[in-house]
Amino acid sequence: MSILVVGSVAFDNISSPAGHVENILGGAATYFSLAASYFTNVRVVAVVGDDFSAEHEAILKKRNIDTLGIERAPGKTFRWGGTYSDNLNEAKTDFTELNVFEKFQPRIPKEYLDTRFLFLANIHPTLQAAVRLEMNGVRLTGGDTMNFWIQRTPKELAETLRLVNVLLINDTETKMIAGESNLPRAAKKVLALGPQALVVKHGEYGATIFFREGAFGVGTHPFRAPALPIDEVKDPTGAGDSFAGGFMGYIASQGEINREVLKRALFYGGVMGSFAVERFGTERLQNLSRGEIDARFQLFRELTHLE
Amino acid sequence: MSILVVGSVAFDNISSPAGHVENILGGAATYFSLAASYFTNVRVVAVVGDDFSAEHEAILKKRNIDTLGIERAPGKTFRWGGTYSDNLNEAKTDFTELNVFEKFQPRIPKEYLDTRFLFLANIHPTLQAAVRLEMNGVRLTGGDTMNFWIQRTPKELAETLRLVNVLLINDTETKMIAGESNLPRAAKKVLALGPQALVVKHGEYGATIFFREGAFGVGTHPFRAPALPIDEVKDPTGAGDSFAGGFMGYIASQGEINREVLKRALFYGGVMGSFAVERFGTERLQNLSRGEIDARFQLFRELTHLE
Repeated sequence: MSILVVGSVAFDNISSPAGHVENILGGAATYFSLAASYFTNVRVVAVVGDDFSAEHEAILKKRNIDTLGIERAPGKTFRWGGTYSDNLNEAKTDFTELNVFEKFQPRIPKEYLDTRFLFLANIHPTLQAAVRLEMNGVRLTGGDTMNFWIQRTPKELAETLRLVNVLLINDTETKMIAGESNLPRAAKKVLALGPQALVVKHGEYGATIFFREGAFGVGTHPFRAPALPIDEVKDPTGAGDSFAGGFMGYIASQGEINREVLKRALFYGGVMGSFAVERFGTERLQNLSRGEIDARFQLFRELTHLE
Repeated sequence: MSILVVGSVAFDNISSPAGHVENILGGAATYFSLAASYFTNVRVVAVVGDDFSAEHEAILKKRNIDTLGIERAPGKTFRWGGTYSDNLNEAKTDFTELNVFEKFQPRIPKEYLDTRFLFLANIHPTLQAAVRLEMNGVRLTGGDTMNFWIQRTPKELAETLRLVNVLLINDTETKMIAGESNLPRAAKKVLALGPQALVVKHGEYGATIFFREGAFGVGTHPFRAPALPIDEVKDPTGAGDSFAGGFMGYIASQGEINREVLKRALFYGGVMGSFAVERFGTERLQNLSRGEIDARFQLFRELTHLE
């Protein structure tokens, strides 16, 4: 089954203890698409500027990603610069130039309207909701958000959360939405706002999926997937979006959606996140094989499973 | 097989969002002993003051813990007061009165000298080393330490690390010993200082065990165990020592020591830590059954294992 992602395409400048790169292709939709492309057909709705060249597009095309929904607007593509110090968990933003992304109004090509799986990457919640409402036949919607929207547009976000089946956010965002410092309690509050399942990403400690009672199966037992202990994290940019791409891409590739599929999807999310951080930008995600992915999945299993 | 723990017995005042308690029995050796007592026979070497009553001793005796090695010294028992705010991961120390613990010189009763498993809880590394050297027949030594010794007595600590088979510390301590901010690299450096295995405790995210090449098995693949998402953490005091008690106690109860045993021990560590935090002080650890422990072990398995 195809999956549609709506989100940002960007050019990034990134500094980390491992080096420095400039003007490399990034953005949530890019990381998501590349990661998901190893599991299913991917369609992208995004906006880019005049500086988005055929070579940039070729990065996506090479992975068979459908770029029909990438709108070209006059002006420059969204640009972001960030620096990671020794603590690679957090970036210091050096600059943000929204450029053409500032007025982004997602337009869904009619060829995309039959897409059954949808991922709403981190954009204004009102845009997320509008996209979801336009996509009538969607079977499962995943979504992301961030502290900016949680604080500035709580009402709009609440509307969107009612339309999202699986929300993927981090610990801080979960606690911020819920106004609650205990994670399982915060998760319960977030689930009460709409989503059937909540994936909380813990960075280097993996991720936990919480279920609403009765959603995708029986009971409310959560499930945890690890992250891989990695000797050299070169660039954590896009790890969360790559996680979402692996998670949603795997789900879209399966006939059924049940707890066991969602649990395996959580592992595949971790797997794709672990590849993303091994090189700068999307480099590692551009040249994987399904064999490498499955070998790493096996590594994640050995990392957590008793005999 | 019996296990001997050397460490502190204390009286604690604890405040958390869930309430306040005063003068309750605590200390690393107490939490460790109670947790380990569900798996094996436990012997304790510690020092207490005049205020340590028969009722306090009865808490240990009831769990069949051998208290012969608990020395009574004139004066007061070690006292500690701490407050947890909404973020239950870290305590603010309200007061520390070392009292009789200040001059603690562990004396091993001759009846204990044949003990095959040893846990050196967090005390001065020179005392830890002296105990280990006195115990000739020891098969496996576990150890703990803290930032205070890492910073103040690095040479003494280095001596002790050569005598410890499994070191159990947290992320910050691991990175501090290694002078390295990447966890897997830091773990490798710590293992190069002596221990065959290193257990890094991640608080609410569980724990990872790293192995030195060839130690207890083949290869260097780490293993991760989860922590249980808990709706109400009443009191995190002693969670790490309870973890160590479950971990070491389980190992001591097994005939063989191999990777699979150490992995299961990591799960049992998490299990005992999860019980400890559900009530103030050692309350929950005093009244468990092996059935409850095994049911929770099963919960940990379901939390992490794919079909």
